[in-house]
Amino acid sequence: MAQGIFITLEGGEGAGKSTLVPALCEALQGLGFPRVHALREPGGTPAAEEIRAILKAPREGERLLDTTELLLMYAARAQLVGSLIRPALSRGEAVVCDRFDLSTLAYQGGGRQIPLGVIAKVREVAIGGFAPDLTLLLDLPVEQGMARARGRGAADRFELEQRPFFERVRAAYLDYAKAHPGEVEVVDASRGIGAVRADAVQRVTDFARARALA
Amino acid sequence: MAQGIFITLEGGEGAGKSTLVPALCEALQGLGFPRVHALREPGGTPAAEEIRAILKAPREGERLLDTTELLLMYAARAQLVGSLIRPALSRGEAVVCDRFDLSTLAYQGGGRQIPLGVIAKVREVAIGGFAPDLTLLLDLPVEQGMARARGRGAADRFELEQRPFFERVRAAYLDYAKAHPGEVEVVDASRGIGAVRADAVQRVTDFARARALA
Repeated sequence: MAQGIFITLEGGEGAGKSTLVPALCEALQGLGFPRVHALREPGGTPAAEEIRAILKAPREGERLLDTTELLLMYAARAQLVGSLIRPALSRGEAVVCDRFDLSTLAYQGGGRQIPLGVIAKVREVAIGGFAPDLTLLLDLPVEQGMARARGRGAADRFELEQRPFFERVRAAYLDYAKAHPGEVEVVDASRGIGAVRADAVQRVTDFARARALA
Repeated sequence: MAQGIFITLEGGEGAGKSTLVPALCEALQGLGFPRVHALREPGGTPAAEEIRAILKAPREGERLLDTTELLLMYAARAQLVGSLIRPALSRGEAVVCDRFDLSTLAYQGGGRQIPLGVIAKVREVAIGGFAPDLTLLLDLPVEQGMARARGRGAADRFELEQRPFFERVRAAYLDYAKAHPGEVEVVDASRGIGAVRADAVQRVTDFARARALA
């Protein structure tokens, strides 16, 4: 396979994204990709990880403004895409990323209610029309995801948000998936991790094989 | 004076901007502003100073992409304007800022050669049409500024640039000032600091007094 592949995992808190990354990487290795990159967003390069730290830290005495948050997210994404993902794909490698651009639509668009036109302007500058080959949206009820996330130790600045925020995030994700069935596949993440993992691996494998034959 | 005032200092390396800030703050205090804020860009709030650290640090093994730099600059600016400058001005206070939006036009536009249309898109999202009341551009030949800056210890990521970069920065500054004489006043910064300080203080005082009478 000379053509690279870019797979992203999306979903709310506690959906199980980071748990799935190694399984998807293993599956892609088995398909013959010369190298597989496991990345996360925001982050994935030293500079982007520094931006992540600013975004995630709960703050006292200063509220990070929504516009600041949006610009920082795209600064990290511009760096990750330009310095790592694009070069890797051009070498025929595989990239699996825990969150990507759809997270901005869901969190800054749905959650923070920044108009989609504003997001589109910044996206255009940051990454142009660059997009994943396939996105798996791990969907589960907000209450269930929040219960899972509560078991994970200290909450970051996003995890400190309240239920209505996460309901808007979920709705934005599902609306986008419904409107873009070829780009985004919805995976039922309310099941046990074994079932979710098998489902996700199957979908990625099917997609990569179908594309290799095309 | 119930109306706030926002003064910015611009110019290349070694132009003497940061040395001038206290003198201008003192002059504005003397004019009766209830509070005077001395700020610098990028920075000026805890989060914006964290962004500054990412922008300024010389990096090994990872080049900060031009687009990343642009988005980080505007993230810091959005935070500073929204959380500090706008509220201060609305309370009738004075703000003196060492660098502001014109630095982006000069460094990311002139220096890095990012198209001005791209910069305008991000500016619109970050700060809309917000602008200083008066900008003093401290102008001096690049060679002279670089010689002054060399005496200041370890160079940051911008100071490590070469002469053609700084020549483009200076040209972009002067072009803008020529096209916007009411917004930007050019101060000859090749003189001794005493003369530059007296000149700058006079201009700011004249501007503030004229505006108070208008």
